[in-house]
Amino acid sequence: MAKAPVLTPRADDYPRWYQDLIGKAELADSGPVRGTMVIRPYGYALWERMQQEMDTRIKAAGADNAYFPLFIPQGHLTREAQHVEGFAPELAVVTHGGGKQLEEPVVVRPTSETIVNEYFAKWVQSYRDLPLLINQWANVVRWEMRPRVFLRTSEFLWQEGHTAHATYEDARDYAAHIHREVYADFMENILAIDVVAGRKTASERFAGAVNTLTLEGMMGDGKALQLGTSHELGQNFARAFDTRYLSKEGREEYVWQTSWGSSTRMVGGLIMSHGDDSGLRVPPRLAPVQVVVLAVKGEEQVLAKVRELGDRLTAAGLRARVDDRTDTPFGRRAVDWELKGVPVRIEVGPRDLESGTATLVRRIPGGKQPVPLQALAELLPTVLEEDQALLLRQSRERREALTSDVSSAEEAAAAAAAGGWARLPWAALGEEGEARLAEHAVTVRCLVAEDGSVPDADDAPGNVAVVARAY
Amino acid sequence: MAKAPVLTPRADDYPRWYQDLIGKAELADSGPVRGTMVIRPYGYALWERMQQEMDTRIKAAGADNAYFPLFIPQGHLTREAQHVEGFAPELAVVTHGGGKQLEEPVVVRPTSETIVNEYFAKWVQSYRDLPLLINQWANVVRWEMRPRVFLRTSEFLWQEGHTAHATYEDARDYAAHIHREVYADFMENILAIDVVAGRKTASERFAGAVNTLTLEGMMGDGKALQLGTSHELGQNFARAFDTRYLSKEGREEYVWQTSWGSSTRMVGGLIMSHGDDSGLRVPPRLAPVQVVVLAVKGEEQVLAKVRELGDRLTAAGLRARVDDRTDTPFGRRAVDWELKGVPVRIEVGPRDLESGTATLVRRIPGGKQPVPLQALAELLPTVLEEDQALLLRQSRERREALTSDVSSAEEAAAAAAAGGWARLPWAALGEEGEARLAEHAVTVRCLVAEDGSVPDADDAPGNVAVVARAY
Repeated sequence: MAKAPVLTPRADDYPRWYQDLIGKAELADSGPVRGTMVIRPYGYALWERMQQEMDTRIKAAGADNAYFPLFIPQGHLTREAQHVEGFAPELAVVTHGGGKQLEEPVVVRPTSETIVNEYFAKWVQSYRDLPLLINQWANVVRWEMRPRVFLRTSEFLWQEGHTAHATYEDARDYAAHIHREVYADFMENILAIDVVAGRKTASERFAGAVNTLTLEGMMGDGKALQLGTSHELGQNFARAFDTRYLSKEGREEYVWQTSWGSSTRMVGGLIMSHGDDSGLRVPPRLAPVQVVVLAVKGEEQVLAKVRELGDRLTAAGLRARVDDRTDTPFGRRAVDWELKGVPVRIEVGPRDLESGTATLVRRIPGGKQPVPLQALAELLPTVLEEDQALLLRQSRERREALTSDVSSAEEAAAAAAAGGWARLPWAALGEEGEARLAEHAVTVRCLVAEDGSVPDADDAPGNVAVVARAY
Repeated sequence: MAKAPVLTPRADDYPRWYQDLIGKAELADSGPVRGTMVIRPYGYALWERMQQEMDTRIKAAGADNAYFPLFIPQGHLTREAQHVEGFAPELAVVTHGGGKQLEEPVVVRPTSETIVNEYFAKWVQSYRDLPLLINQWANVVRWEMRPRVFLRTSEFLWQEGHTAHATYEDARDYAAHIHREVYADFMENILAIDVVAGRKTASERFAGAVNTLTLEGMMGDGKALQLGTSHELGQNFARAFDTRYLSKEGREEYVWQTSWGSSTRMVGGLIMSHGDDSGLRVPPRLAPVQVVVLAVKGEEQVLAKVRELGDRLTAAGLRARVDDRTDTPFGRRAVDWELKGVPVRIEVGPRDLESGTATLVRRIPGGKQPVPLQALAELLPTVLEEDQALLLRQSRERREALTSDVSSAEEAAAAAAAGGWARLPWAALGEEGEARLAEHAVTVRCLVAEDGSVPDADDAPGNVAVVARAY
């Protein structure tokens, strides 16, 4: 008898599979206000692990955490012209506070460049105060007309970095450092998502930036997801907010700035990179639960054994959890852990105790095998590292298989519509071709140099445009 | 020649000393929207350490982190009558989103009981789903007419716990567990603040609660600060949101709930508990920087030695930082670390290298002494634990010295006005006496039982009212 599928199969309806998975794996719910979300404990545990890994890398890059207010006076936003033009359609506006109409409405931050610059202008006096490297973990609001949980929500959680530097070169190098050593490193080595690193074309840049670096991942349906961006802001905000410093030579100079962000949308990217028809598959280095030890039945000896084993694995440095909820049928619990994508299940039943073994079930490659209980603590780290590598390899292979080289905008649009990425010379596409792609809801995700590196300029010779539909 | 004081002395003007310290120790700035604040890196590092210590205790109490939306439909708030009455005057209201007027205005959460209950009502089906133990780290907004940085801000950061239980007893015990094992334990053992644990009188309870437990600390000026509260919500929100479960006996029952919160106001409490006329004094167990190793001058040998020493202390498990900014005068840097309240400074100059010693400067008891460089890694943990204990002892001694036993509301009001706490039998004060105290801006901070424990009821025999002015 074939089991009824737990989720809508991906091949039948990918967006529905995504929604099913988020509901059944208990990752999130929709909020009561349009476009908002409730992040449930397991979804939040994934985000907390992302935060930990990112925060360590951000601190290693020399940035300190701080916190700026949620509310920004409307006037602040209008000081940088491109910036306000980009964000005005998405703003939430507070008009009443403490029972009274406010004299000046305040906006809920869509991003914090403007309020950060008000303070940078105060804090930065001399070249000794530079570089000033700040990061913030916060919620932001951008009103969404077509929301999708984790991918496009009216409120989301993120980190936003904001820095000020004495020179153009120092700012450029720092944006590139964050792009490479924080974002790309985290995405490849922890999220196990193969990402293409490139620069945005002028039409896709952050509102107010002179250059935007991006990391793009290919999802299970061949669409692209922008996973993190780093911006060179030039002196745009510095001029708007008069953020100047006294140089070593005694001259007043505007600072050069960067900003960079990554958000809970990475949870959506995780789902669509690694999920399958049975649920999520979480890379072991990220997983809040790497190993779950399940009591198949409720005998005292079984319960004692799973608890002892759970303690032993925890002591060995693994993120282990015991599932001894034997008043819930074993099959339902097994399906639940599959949905949640925990990399390894250790199933212990009465017969296992007699033979001194347990059943090791691997979520990522699939398959189960008996394993001596005594061998587990030593075996599991190797298993988990294999699984981590496999997910990255599968992500890379999918991108390679679904990417095609083309030579015109029309071919690129067709490749994207068929569920894949296209590559073509930027010189052959150009802004005019980019505009034609837009008619098919297809965009240039980024420009990369011939050798795969990040180009220094949009029009550098040999630049290749990576083209796709995107979330 | 006497040095000009770095801060306004506490004895001259306590509120000004507080503001001076926050500015000069670079803890926070006022935000552009009235009552908001910018938490600067050092202030935020203090908050991050509080978060870490609290989060560990909250997870040990079995609660999982999650995230609920910032925006709550106005209609949600009105469902629990006392709750909306309590919070209506402090709400910030969003009327426009995405360029349009909203059909129903949304409020920025002042606290999350109402939105949490919408989801608890969905998630809780049977007794197997209980207890449901959730915590959230988030920002909340309560419009403040008389803001003061960290103590009363229109936006603040906090954690709010929300739980649902099958029985009254289980909810009551969990609120008490959080009160004791999370809040009191953290405040005494990490913040080194001596706290009085008690229950609020009816007029001081959280809006919508049937019982509020509180922890009150005495600040340097003899006023009280409420540092954390745990509420028994009874079935008030469960009835308003129809949060029910199917019991083991097959009956539909309303859940019993708790909520509990602590916030960035604890940073204000830290300042006013331990600060002195030279700045902050941070308890070593909390301190983001426990030891700073200062290069007195910029000779290569000195710089090499301070860096080596910094590495050695870090390797020994201390939170150490190196200050080798020798282009800033030594005296200014020393004053800066005093302002920031780093418990121990190790000063290394050229003469120290010759003798193989360094100067150990202790911020908390005061005083400096030469110490052999080789002995530091072993000596410092003992020094830091002594300092931790000293701060708690000083906090306790101040409370004891400035608390007096009185017998009438008038005497209590006089004691509070003189800068202290008063204790008197609740039976002698009563709600009528409480109302008279209010005319002098004096409140009952909490009720405690004769033996110092937390009473089960307001009118339990022998209850003592602790009375003070409060922030």
